[in-house]
Amino acid sequence: MSENRGVVYKGPGEVEVVDLDMPEFVLRDGPGVNPANVGRKVNHGVILKVVSTNICGSDQHMVRGRTTAPAGLVLGHEITGEVVEKGPDVEFLDVGDLVSVPFNIACGRCRNCKERATGICLNVNPDRPGSAYGYVDMGGWVGGQTRYVLVPYADFNALKFPDRDRAMAKILDLTMLSDIFPTGFHGCVSAGVGVGSTVYIAGAGPVGLAAAASAQLLGAAAVIVGDLNPERLAQARAFGCETVDVSKGDPGEQIAEILGVPEVDSAVDAVGFEARGHGDGSAQEAPATVLNSVMELTRAGGAIGIPGLYVTGDPGGVDEAAKVGSLSIRIGLGWAKSHAFTTGQCPVMKYHRGLMMAILHDKVSIAEAVNAKPIPLEDAPQGYRDFDRGAAAKYVLDPHGMVAAATG
Amino acid sequence: MSENRGVVYKGPGEVEVVDLDMPEFVLRDGPGVNPANVGRKVNHGVILKVVSTNICGSDQHMVRGRTTAPAGLVLGHEITGEVVEKGPDVEFLDVGDLVSVPFNIACGRCRNCKERATGICLNVNPDRPGSAYGYVDMGGWVGGQTRYVLVPYADFNALKFPDRDRAMAKILDLTMLSDIFPTGFHGCVSAGVGVGSTVYIAGAGPVGLAAAASAQLLGAAAVIVGDLNPERLAQARAFGCETVDVSKGDPGEQIAEILGVPEVDSAVDAVGFEARGHGDGSAQEAPATVLNSVMELTRAGGAIGIPGLYVTGDPGGVDEAAKVGSLSIRIGLGWAKSHAFTTGQCPVMKYHRGLMMAILHDKVSIAEAVNAKPIPLEDAPQGYRDFDRGAAAKYVLDPHGMVAAATG
Amino acid sequence: MSENRGVVYKGPGEVEVVDLDMPEFVLRDGPGVNPANVGRKVNHGVILKVVSTNICGSDQHMVRGRTTAPAGLVLGHEITGEVVEKGPDVEFLDVGDLVSVPFNIACGRCRNCKERATGICLNVNPDRPGSAYGYVDMGGWVGGQTRYVLVPYADFNALKFPDRDRAMAKILDLTMLSDIFPTGFHGCVSAGVGVGSTVYIAGAGPVGLAAAASAQLLGAAAVIVGDLNPERLAQARAFGCETVDVSKGDPGEQIAEILGVPEVDSAVDAVGFEARGHGDGSAQEAPATVLNSVMELTRAGGAIGIPGLYVTGDPGGVDEAAKVGSLSIRIGLGWAKSHAFTTGQCPVMKYHRGLMMAILHDKVSIAEAVNAKPIPLEDAPQGYRDFDRGAAAKYVLDPHGMVAAATG
Amino acid sequence: MSENRGVVYKGPGEVEVVDLDMPEFVLRDGPGVNPANVGRKVNHGVILKVVSTNICGSDQHMVRGRTTAPAGLVLGHEITGEVVEKGPDVEFLDVGDLVSVPFNIACGRCRNCKERATGICLNVNPDRPGSAYGYVDMGGWVGGQTRYVLVPYADFNALKFPDRDRAMAKILDLTMLSDIFPTGFHGCVSAGVGVGSTVYIAGAGPVGLAAAASAQLLGAAAVIVGDLNPERLAQARAFGCETVDVSKGDPGEQIAEILGVPEVDSAVDAVGFEARGHGDGSAQEAPATVLNSVMELTRAGGAIGIPGLYVTGDPGGVDEAAKVGSLSIRIGLGWAKSHAFTTGQCPVMKYHRGLMMAILHDKVSIAEAVNAKPIPLEDAPQGYRDFDRGAAAKYVLDPHGMVAAATG
Repeated sequence: MSENRGVVYKGPGEVEVVDLDMPEFVLRDGPGVNPANVGRKVNHGVILKVVSTNICGSDQHMVRGRTTAPAGLVLGHEITGEVVEKGPDVEFLDVGDLVSVPFNIACGRCRNCKERATGICLNVNPDRPGSAYGYVDMGGWVGGQTRYVLVPYADFNALKFPDRDRAMAKILDLTMLSDIFPTGFHGCVSAGVGVGSTVYIAGAGPVGLAAAASAQLLGAAAVIVGDLNPERLAQARAFGCETVDVSKGDPGEQIAEILGVPEVDSAVDAVGFEARGHGDGSAQEAPATVLNSVMELTRAGGAIGIPGLYVTGDPGGVDEAAKVGSLSIRIGLGWAKSHAFTTGQCPVMKYHRGLMMAILHDKVSIAEAVNAKPIPLEDAPQGYRDFDRGAAAKYVLDPHGMVAAATG
Repeated sequence: MSENRGVVYKGPGEVEVVDLDMPEFVLRDGPGVNPANVGRKVNHGVILKVVSTNICGSDQHMVRGRTTAPAGLVLGHEITGEVVEKGPDVEFLDVGDLVSVPFNIACGRCRNCKERATGICLNVNPDRPGSAYGYVDMGGWVGGQTRYVLVPYADFNALKFPDRDRAMAKILDLTMLSDIFPTGFHGCVSAGVGVGSTVYIAGAGPVGLAAAASAQLLGAAAVIVGDLNPERLAQARAFGCETVDVSKGDPGEQIAEILGVPEVDSAVDAVGFEARGHGDGSAQEAPATVLNSVMELTRAGGAIGIPGLYVTGDPGGVDEAAKVGSLSIRIGLGWAKSHAFTTGQCPVMKYHRGLMMAILHDKVSIAEAVNAKPIPLEDAPQGYRDFDRGAAAKYVLDPHGMVAAATG
Repeated sequence: MSENRGVVYKGPGEVEVVDLDMPEFVLRDGPGVNPANVGRKVNHGVILKVVSTNICGSDQHMVRGRTTAPAGLVLGHEITGEVVEKGPDVEFLDVGDLVSVPFNIACGRCRNCKERATGICLNVNPDRPGSAYGYVDMGGWVGGQTRYVLVPYADFNALKFPDRDRAMAKILDLTMLSDIFPTGFHGCVSAGVGVGSTVYIAGAGPVGLAAAASAQLLGAAAVIVGDLNPERLAQARAFGCETVDVSKGDPGEQIAEILGVPEVDSAVDAVGFEARGHGDGSAQEAPATVLNSVMELTRAGGAIGIPGLYVTGDPGGVDEAAKVGSLSIRIGLGWAKSHAFTTGQCPVMKYHRGLMMAILHDKVSIAEAVNAKPIPLEDAPQGYRDFDRGAAAKYVLDPHGMVAAATG
Repeated sequence: MSENRGVVYKGPGEVEVVDLDMPEFVLRDGPGVNPANVGRKVNHGVILKVVSTNICGSDQHMVRGRTTAPAGLVLGHEITGEVVEKGPDVEFLDVGDLVSVPFNIACGRCRNCKERATGICLNVNPDRPGSAYGYVDMGGWVGGQTRYVLVPYADFNALKFPDRDRAMAKILDLTMLSDIFPTGFHGCVSAGVGVGSTVYIAGAGPVGLAAAASAQLLGAAAVIVGDLNPERLAQARAFGCETVDVSKGDPGEQIAEILGVPEVDSAVDAVGFEARGHGDGSAQEAPATVLNSVMELTRAGGAIGIPGLYVTGDPGGVDEAAKVGSLSIRIGLGWAKSHAFTTGQCPVMKYHRGLMMAILHDKVSIAEAVNAKPIPLEDAPQGYRDFDRGAAAKYVLDPHGMVAAATG
């Protein structure tokens, strides 16, 4: 077995843990690496020993074959690790530091990064603004569901935990800082959630549950989570959310039973383009269902946060329009209600420091909320399968057994 | 001829100026009056002698028969006038005051009004949040394309001009405060336009031109207006805008010729659901064209303001989906670019005072920008016809000849 | 005994409960009533049966003789009550409704009210922007430490509780909505407190404790309260705050023991102009101590909220400058640290609805945090004395025994 | 004559142009260099051939001997230049690029830089947050009133002009991007200036004039500049400002003559701690005069931007308190009016790109507004003297004659 190993996409429905080269301070050619990035020097990078790295719902889009991800792509963009080597330009990190890595790779030098829009950095992905580790069409940065990974622009990207021991004691919470906790939080912030808000979260997967925990942290009066998976709804109820079973008919009526009115102040679409219908239609994929539903459920003047992924190309889309990312949206309804909509990758860096502080000071139990389940790196394929079946859990890969040692 | 006369909708394509009862401090039954509003006391209202009242593009939706507006509806929601009588509860206005009236009727007492969302007042329209004078499904408040009109909640709604003489000297500018100037401005504000922005305004009708003038006032570096009507494009160029003729192919290429890049920082959809296709498709109605186009033209991280009207029901829609206000929108593209979208009626009160100050201190020539054309009230039918044919003008009805006297 | 009774200021150190006329829909002459307000019609008002009304630290400034309040002034600006009669212009409230009344009286029609700045309404106080019930130089609106009180512009000012029974069950919490809860919350909001913030609250009186509870509700990571009264510090610790005893030396060192660094992200001055020195100087009044101290304790780039009252005239000031409200402030330090400062009355209406929702949904226990102590109206003089001695309690007057019955 | 020369501070009232070593990618010891910075590697830096570099009012504080600046300090923090050499870590700049350099040196990697607070970067000045070129107590970065200068963290700090020829044609405007234009703009933004505002700018020096031009660009309805120097007031009037001569009595009365009311919406203190009294007191330094005056002149609810420098130590202060930066401030007045105050260095990077676009698209003539006067580098001593005498001009040093060639 090689010193480095990691999870690679083999083809629809199939991932495997394989031997990998150790990362160096250069981006070498490989599956999915953009030609313009091949050979790129990364003296500003650090090499991390990966402490924890999570399986994400957006990995599933690739693994289900709903994207053009090439076979051999090393997966993983939710990375927490320990600096084991630093490039010659790194000034403010040291070997031994424990850091959280935002899933969005950002240069810290372009207009967008300077404006805090690190989800659409202009300098890391030759194809389009925005990048991520281990993801299709994102420039080819090697994924982090591995034992070791290269993090570019490390002084800018990495968030150092102030104390190693305190951090390891909370590692299952802190591992959520790389993506889903900020992503759920961003959904809430962009939906205008604040003290006293009533909130509807569409989707009880990890991002939805993270959004629900975020809404609580932001002081929401009532947090209602909708899904059709009973196990996931039970998970939402486990930390104080109300729930709506969208397979059981009109969410508005169910909300009215909870709040007295069929509308909420704010809504978060934590599902995205692989949505299914509501009520009797819940067996079929119906990609605009969630968006149209949240407009119905959000009061006039409310805002809608859309952290759920919508794509520009979906080979498995339900119709020709969906294949190019066009959906039939009730814009007339939204307009009549003066809704505002915020889409896009969460710019993790805007939020991760504050959320880290909330974790370290015991203000939120995000690992519990999303039901974090650490498993060995080698068990990743089983984790992918269970997650795809709708397990109400967030799988945290533990490549060096450090999580098990710390939390066991 | 009666003391009061006004413009009424007779049927598709037809308006007429007819005798009307004088307004009283009560909302009486009539065409389009919501039964729950019949007999409503309006002691908080003032009766205005209408100084000026403009024909609006959204009036055209009704007149074209694209709504369920009943015959006999008195039209007009862009009202400037002189207080001639005040209800017993009015404290802060006096007979003789000259005021601008926001098109959105608002109570000033509900949650939304208190939060400045006067476009979705909860207390004036029994059907849904939000109201306007002389408009279908808006509660039945009598329109203001008349000689006299009732303005409810006048202490809250009316904006008093500080000096009558200075106001009359600028009446053609100030008349735009009731709707299109704030509406265009709101489009820009919600699109994030600021000092140094590059801006694309889709549509060179009055709202588009008002948005363009607003972008200039906000300090935009470059304001580009797109339309397919050459006369309207010429009007945009007349006050310093760049233009794109969307009938001549890809707006992105035309923008690149102007800016060096095919994208702008901010975009405003000042067209709405009656959009036509671009390029060769410009002859057909294609209701999502503008929305999809502005996503293409707006840089990643940019915002899109949507003051253009999208409706929940459109009997004349191009297909079944359009008839209920559902359009095929490239949400995947918007998501990839982290776009934010703001829809809905402009809450005029948020902006009208500042814009009035800008007019009174000669910082903007909005009447020139939109090519204001005063005409007698009795000529309204001709004004409607000319406007419907795409005249590059904003028609200002002058029921008492006061505009002509002041500007003549 | 008259049907109406209330607390009046008799002279320095002395308050008394006396018979009062029943309120009518007019502001009659009386101690402290501005001549321009005498005879003002209040058809827009409601008369409340006062359910609860709290003694406030700012009442103490008057009672201690630190203001020009006239003898005979009816005190009290923290009012919760039941509508027993409504003026002819009131539309959206009914007899029987239970409402919270913001201490700042606001017309809902002026520029400032429309911009949500209800703390500086232009139409209710002929002397200056801003008003309050039962307060010197505030226009002369009769105070509410009474059995019955008149609330002007009631449709605008009053916040109706959605359900009477649920409200009475939480009445000790809801009574804090009229002033100190929003005031503390505003201090935090203007200090930039958010999820993950570290916060220093100067002062553990009711406003300070309300600010501390607000910071927790806003998701602060650590809330540190400073005071020199051990009982009040214990009260702060009782709901999870850290504390600093400013009589025991440098607050920075004490903060460093808690946080590892001697600075916080945000600070709130909940003390105001009657501040005492820190450390050895804590026996003397030193009016700029708190302001200068919070600049020291707040990180560069942090913000400082100043809900604590600073006055324009203080006959009992420590020196000539202080008597006219001028204090020696280390502005150079603040400038070097790029601090931002927000002063002034809290505009209660901006916050009370959300805070009510948080209370009704069990997200905050504000009564516990401030140690609410209901006492009969007739015991008000004792309450004033105890509060003046530094009791770690918030006295809630219960004029009709309704609080006792509900919380019994 | 050496290849590199520059302006150095010799002692109170005295500057000289002397030979200097060429900059290298390291910060060497020298006058005012913080020991912790000596030897610091600057591989992330570029060496600029200085195209233009301006004399700033804050340089005058040092030259007047009001600081602890050491003799030999190389002055200058307003730098525009051409990249002639780049450090090995620089990725996004090239030799030949023309760039504007924010006066605040920032690392782009610390918490504050990531939050856009580049005026208080944590990594460049060992003494305190925030740094600048050629300034006392700012870490010792060598000033830029030189022929060549080192700019650290160049990929982050430098703003590249998109087109060299267009840039040189506007060089006198673009040179203001390094400090005074953004600083004046920041003053306005933090004072809440927007479309339709009435604004008072205290001080008609270059920052005040830049603030006035900024207010116009932001759409202010009326911009009123106050000073006691007739030549500077004339300069303000030259580009459309109203003026108040503070030596001629109460500014409020003079404002009332202009606006009809004695108050403005927003005020900017562009003077700082070396203020003089108003009216008869205008001969004496009175360091809190401006702050106290702007509170008087700003309406309740208004905001006050304070770009004018206040220092923590002033050996020449008028009294003991002033020597440590404490001033007697009418905080009671500010509180009664609910004022908000924003202090500190302008974070130039937040604004310079938008302002550059406004310049390049002819939306503002900042060089004209501040009366830019290019002079040879060797004439700097005369420039300092003229500026100190109150010349209504902004002196732009032209070390290579490039400005003269471009604008001549």
